[in-house]
Amino acid sequence: MVVDDFDGRQPMTAQTQPADVRSGADTVHRIDAWWRAANYLSVGQIYLLDNPLLRTPVLPEHVKPRLLGHWGTVPGITLTYAHLNHAIMRDGVNALLVTGPGHGAAGLNAAAWLEGTYSELYPHVAQDEAGMRQLFRQFSFPGGVPSHASPHLPGSIHEGGELGYALAHATGAALDNPDLVVACVIGDGEAETGPLATSWHAPAFLDPRTDGAVLPILHLNGYKIANPTVLSRLPREDLAAILRAHGWRPIEVVGSDPFEVHEAYGHALRECLTGISEIKNGGHRQAGWPMIVLRTPKGWTGPREFEGSWRSHQVPITDIRSDPHKQAQLEAWLQSYRPDELFDVDGTPAGPVRYWHPLGDKRMSATPIAHGLIQRDLNLPDWQRYTVDVTRPAEATRALGGYLRDAMSLNAGRLLYFAPDEHASNRLGDVFEVTGRRWQLPIEPGDEHLSPHGRVFEVLSEHLCQGWLEGYLLTGRHGLLSSYEAFTHIVDSMVAQHAKWLHTAADIPWRRPVPSLNYLLTSHVWRQDHNGASHQDPGFVDHVLSKRPEVARVYLPPDANTLLSVADHCLRTRGLVNVIVAGKQPAHQYLTADEARAHCEQGLGVWSWASNDLDGDTDVVLACSGDVPTQEALAAVDVLRELVPDLRIRVVNVVDLGRLFSPEQHPHGISDREYAEIFTADQPVIFAFHGYPWLIHRLTYRRPGHDNLHVWGFHDYGTTTTPFDMCVLNELDRYHLALAALERVPRIGNRIGHLRQELLARLAKHHDHIRRTGEDLPEIRDWTPRRTS
Amino acid sequence: MVVDDFDGRQPMTAQTQPADVRSGADTVHRIDAWWRAANYLSVGQIYLLDNPLLRTPVLPEHVKPRLLGHWGTVPGITLTYAHLNHAIMRDGVNALLVTGPGHGAAGLNAAAWLEGTYSELYPHVAQDEAGMRQLFRQFSFPGGVPSHASPHLPGSIHEGGELGYALAHATGAALDNPDLVVACVIGDGEAETGPLATSWHAPAFLDPRTDGAVLPILHLNGYKIANPTVLSRLPREDLAAILRAHGWRPIEVVGSDPFEVHEAYGHALRECLTGISEIKNGGHRQAGWPMIVLRTPKGWTGPREFEGSWRSHQVPITDIRSDPHKQAQLEAWLQSYRPDELFDVDGTPAGPVRYWHPLGDKRMSATPIAHGLIQRDLNLPDWQRYTVDVTRPAEATRALGGYLRDAMSLNAGRLLYFAPDEHASNRLGDVFEVTGRRWQLPIEPGDEHLSPHGRVFEVLSEHLCQGWLEGYLLTGRHGLLSSYEAFTHIVDSMVAQHAKWLHTAADIPWRRPVPSLNYLLTSHVWRQDHNGASHQDPGFVDHVLSKRPEVARVYLPPDANTLLSVADHCLRTRGLVNVIVAGKQPAHQYLTADEARAHCEQGLGVWSWASNDLDGDTDVVLACSGDVPTQEALAAVDVLRELVPDLRIRVVNVVDLGRLFSPEQHPHGISDREYAEIFTADQPVIFAFHGYPWLIHRLTYRRPGHDNLHVWGFHDYGTTTTPFDMCVLNELDRYHLALAALERVPRIGNRIGHLRQELLARLAKHHDHIRRTGEDLPEIRDWTPRRTS
Repeated sequence: MVVDDFDGRQPMTAQTQPADVRSGADTVHRIDAWWRAANYLSVGQIYLLDNPLLRTPVLPEHVKPRLLGHWGTVPGITLTYAHLNHAIMRDGVNALLVTGPGHGAAGLNAAAWLEGTYSELYPHVAQDEAGMRQLFRQFSFPGGVPSHASPHLPGSIHEGGELGYALAHATGAALDNPDLVVACVIGDGEAETGPLATSWHAPAFLDPRTDGAVLPILHLNGYKIANPTVLSRLPREDLAAILRAHGWRPIEVVGSDPFEVHEAYGHALRECLTGISEIKNGGHRQAGWPMIVLRTPKGWTGPREFEGSWRSHQVPITDIRSDPHKQAQLEAWLQSYRPDELFDVDGTPAGPVRYWHPLGDKRMSATPIAHGLIQRDLNLPDWQRYTVDVTRPAEATRALGGYLRDAMSLNAGRLLYFAPDEHASNRLGDVFEVTGRRWQLPIEPGDEHLSPHGRVFEVLSEHLCQGWLEGYLLTGRHGLLSSYEAFTHIVDSMVAQHAKWLHTAADIPWRRPVPSLNYLLTSHVWRQDHNGASHQDPGFVDHVLSKRPEVARVYLPPDANTLLSVADHCLRTRGLVNVIVAGKQPAHQYLTADEARAHCEQGLGVWSWASNDLDGDTDVVLACSGDVPTQEALAAVDVLRELVPDLRIRVVNVVDLGRLFSPEQHPHGISDREYAEIFTADQPVIFAFHGYPWLIHRLTYRRPGHDNLHVWGFHDYGTTTTPFDMCVLNELDRYHLALAALERVPRIGNRIGHLRQELLARLAKHHDHIRRTGEDLPEIRDWTPRRTS
Repeated sequence: MVVDDFDGRQPMTAQTQPADVRSGADTVHRIDAWWRAANYLSVGQIYLLDNPLLRTPVLPEHVKPRLLGHWGTVPGITLTYAHLNHAIMRDGVNALLVTGPGHGAAGLNAAAWLEGTYSELYPHVAQDEAGMRQLFRQFSFPGGVPSHASPHLPGSIHEGGELGYALAHATGAALDNPDLVVACVIGDGEAETGPLATSWHAPAFLDPRTDGAVLPILHLNGYKIANPTVLSRLPREDLAAILRAHGWRPIEVVGSDPFEVHEAYGHALRECLTGISEIKNGGHRQAGWPMIVLRTPKGWTGPREFEGSWRSHQVPITDIRSDPHKQAQLEAWLQSYRPDELFDVDGTPAGPVRYWHPLGDKRMSATPIAHGLIQRDLNLPDWQRYTVDVTRPAEATRALGGYLRDAMSLNAGRLLYFAPDEHASNRLGDVFEVTGRRWQLPIEPGDEHLSPHGRVFEVLSEHLCQGWLEGYLLTGRHGLLSSYEAFTHIVDSMVAQHAKWLHTAADIPWRRPVPSLNYLLTSHVWRQDHNGASHQDPGFVDHVLSKRPEVARVYLPPDANTLLSVADHCLRTRGLVNVIVAGKQPAHQYLTADEARAHCEQGLGVWSWASNDLDGDTDVVLACSGDVPTQEALAAVDVLRELVPDLRIRVVNVVDLGRLFSPEQHPHGISDREYAEIFTADQPVIFAFHGYPWLIHRLTYRRPGHDNLHVWGFHDYGTTTTPFDMCVLNELDRYHLALAALERVPRIGNRIGHLRQELLARLAKHHDHIRRTGEDLPEIRDWTPRRTS
């Protein structure tokens, strides 16, 4: 499975390394030299515009006018990189590095440059003096590269900046990569975040047989931005106890003397790799997955007055241009790395540093896994085999469950499902016919579908589900996250970062678009009648549509067959965030497989089978998007036909919200002409929408006839009540919709008084009935959609 | 300080309890009886419409048509309540209960009813048969109360539903309540969430001298919804090690035999309270804050085939109406609690249960702390003492820092500040002149402002900052959370729940509105030029404005003096979510103290000092909201004056986004007439907005002249660059704004070609300059606002 995953490439092995690396001669000095080189290059990036090799004393014009970057975490990152490189060269380890404190990107840029990857991918940043000057100059500089790790950084799958998700990303990357060691630096306070704190539970889920290893390196340099970190001040034995109890075996590396630390780090890393091999080879796991706790000073090797202090978090020496003393201080700092030993006169990495790195794909900065180069398309079943009979109510997500089950069977090793303990309650349980729920802890009688090799991940943490899935996708595999709609807000911030990553990565030619992040939001707001207000908020789609239109997609399939069509489409896409909102309750079905395919391809359209208007004689348009709004809009049509039989009604359904954008705003947008053909340009449109109504206005405010568009949606009114009452509370029910339509049709004239009375009477009858019986009226429960044609 | 906090009320003490409670006679049997009564009432709520005392066999019509609720967690909640009640009666403990698994609200409703509180607050739910019938019927029933804990629930400060925040809320409630024990049930998988996982760090922050105690009760009933929980399957010694290492002293209570568990729980609770007293009395804390790990079966005492299984999470026996066998099963379950012993024939709590609860305010269901009844207004300094000179640039948040410092001095014990390690970097450091950063772990040389009694809470977890602050506010105190704008999305879900709580609580007469949740979003999107894309997302305000307008407020003060005015206003409000967005960088100042007061009172208005139009001759309106957009709009005015001296320009600034709503939509909304007076009804309006542009369209799409409104805002384009380049990337800079204005003024005519060329040339010059030098052009850096009058 693994070799296959490498797409036939020949992995580099120890045999391809220079002989002196394998022999171990002078190892610690070469590690130290490489580390000094990486640190030199990092300081250069933060400070220098020019004079990269210090051919002259540092002058004001050599120093950047704005000093932007983060030094404090860098020496720990470069140290880790150096020792991992040694291990890769020595043992042929397949390694991927996830760096939580990615604000230390200078260190990672330096490593990629030393490994040659940077120059291969960015030829204008060559391994010579001019290239080094460019490497320095472009860092945190307009038109250059950001101060945080980003898609520009070779070898990275993890954006620096917002802390919390490093270990979850690393875990996701390790899943189904049995040959891989994912090293993960956690530092600068990240461990205080909630998502990181619960990420330590990874050993309860990682499968030693089918997954790779996660190798956390908890870098305790003492401080976050202005404060000590909690973990660095806990008694050391307490911290070790926490880690051990989560299933890790922490190995400490402590010190501030470089060679002592090199010695200790080397031993620790060797012990980790041995421990990982033992576990992977079926050894017992009671001792825990090995990891490193690295205690070195913040801003280590930097100016003495900042070293070991929170003051070295960003840029230690500032205001250099105006102060010759500081220029000398910076120069002394740079010289302390002895650049003359590390670089030739022309700027190329010299003697001890040159070639002292893994080769080809084995370089962590060049691993094809990080660049999306190792992917296999999904082999998906024909979704039309799972479609439902439209004459009977069906549970949309249950129909999808059959499809997902067979998709899982066909795609071992490259497809996973994630859910916060709701996979079965969301009616996707058919999947458990072919796989289980991943679980490494004891299994007891009464448990259902637990398995150490299961391919459904359920944990009561949306952060973990999202973080694991992101890590899995960013390394080229496929997946789906199903969740309660309201609770996806928990990962708002994560999806924003992921969308930025995708949008930026799309412009980077050496990255291949990775499979899309697919959400199934079910147990949605309109059917939280049984849970109440705490479970009600449809705003996740607003948030996703605030991200770049190039990457954001939202679909609201009205029934089971359209859900199947949409889900099948989404699973085939790359580089997107796809949000599908669909109910799990028994609900009416409207479209056959063929109709569903055609409707989803269009993304929106007139439902002529539910309409009775002819070209040019439309009295009112009832538009709808979302399963419950569609049901209520169609029921409103029935009410309108009954009350005003000659009313000419057009029904429009929207599956793909992207269609409502103009083509300049979104790649799925339709032209104003198409829009007017569907919605009319001059007739009243009553739009029943699943979410907050202003989203529809946002998408259409420049459209012809927008003044005639009236949107009904969710207004944060909800409690534990009946399904229909949820609609009534927010005035999205059939009677309110019918009234809204009638009030806007001029030829209704003064009949409106009587009609309004009739509709309000029906609402009152409903109100009385549900408060007496706790149930909706039979006429609501028994309503079924009708076809006019 | 504490007695004062109780507003002069006489706290109940053990002396006021019935003698037999104090004597301890028959204690365990009374505890068990009370527990059985609470469980009976809980099952009754989930199932029964009628026949509450089982006067006849259970018939179909006695059973609710829709069975909605969560049984699994209830017996642990009621057990905890019973034992806490005993401790309150015995020892006079002041206790507040936070129930994480608040989906078990039936148990809490039952407790409040048994204590009499329910009937006092809801007289139609009396302590008799009719009242019991009503208690049952209304639960999860239309027009009744939700299935989850909500503001309707007496004694609760914590909405059930979304899991993760119980321990953070409990910690916040304990701050500055030195006499209080905040018991906190954590269960049903909540401990797997990130926010809860990091909440265990509370002992690193809780001050035994000034704070109360948090008493976690980790209820491990084995399962969440469909899966075992991770913590329940960890080896017991591992779990204990995790808790101990975080600073807790876990005491286990394990069993399924009620009397054995009662015995153990009683001992454990006594040990906890003794341990808390020791710590509070200055004893050493090495042993840890005591807590309970409760291991009892899920759905304990329920039907045998569901007991101890995830199958009892919600409603164990279903479809009862159609199945006489199940009716009998339900009846047997109810009878197993021996209701005849527990209730008199008229339904009132009988012999062993009657009066077996604390009295008055000592009842956890009646504690005035939970209902917002214990509040002291803030004593705030005059904000005008901190205003800045408008002729020089100033850092807005630094000016606020002085005000916040003095506010802190004046309000010991009732005001706290929270920030994710950014208080100083957000320029609020003056506060450290009067207080420190809260820290209970060791303090080392080089640390700054750490103190075990500090009143600024800094932890690298937005979840903890928010959760602690919410708990503090919900118990009647005041606070402010300052954060990076982009990273407040981390708490999107939390603020949504809090806003719902406030909105619902406002309609509950026995709750007093609690102080508002105040956010200062600084380090905002436009000044993340030094950090880059990962720190850029202004969408938190969109999210907050999707919440009910009754509670949501967003302010964008353009300078320091308006920030002071707005912050002072927000700190005085109750029951709201106030979001203030303001920069921390040196920036131009526009309004004197008097002007700032007047402008903030208006919320928006024409800046005549920057305008040169006269009534009726306006060519174009430049509107702005937010500090950077205001700067660019004013600079655009300068550019326009230079290029087209006779152009009549009006400048409008918006501080309070609520003003843009219509009065029907938001309490701050202005009429269309007022709107048109400010923005004109027919002239082009170029609106420079801090956030995503569609928010302004959402607020104004029905306004007169909306077709002429063109909004420039953030479009997710950003990286590490110069401040001005951030504006250029999103086309919010002075040149793009000026061009947008000129393109829409008809009398510019065909001069537009030349003008466009000129503006694009300036942009190109900027582009070249910053890419060459890394700095903005001097003409950008040296620009200062001008007054026309």
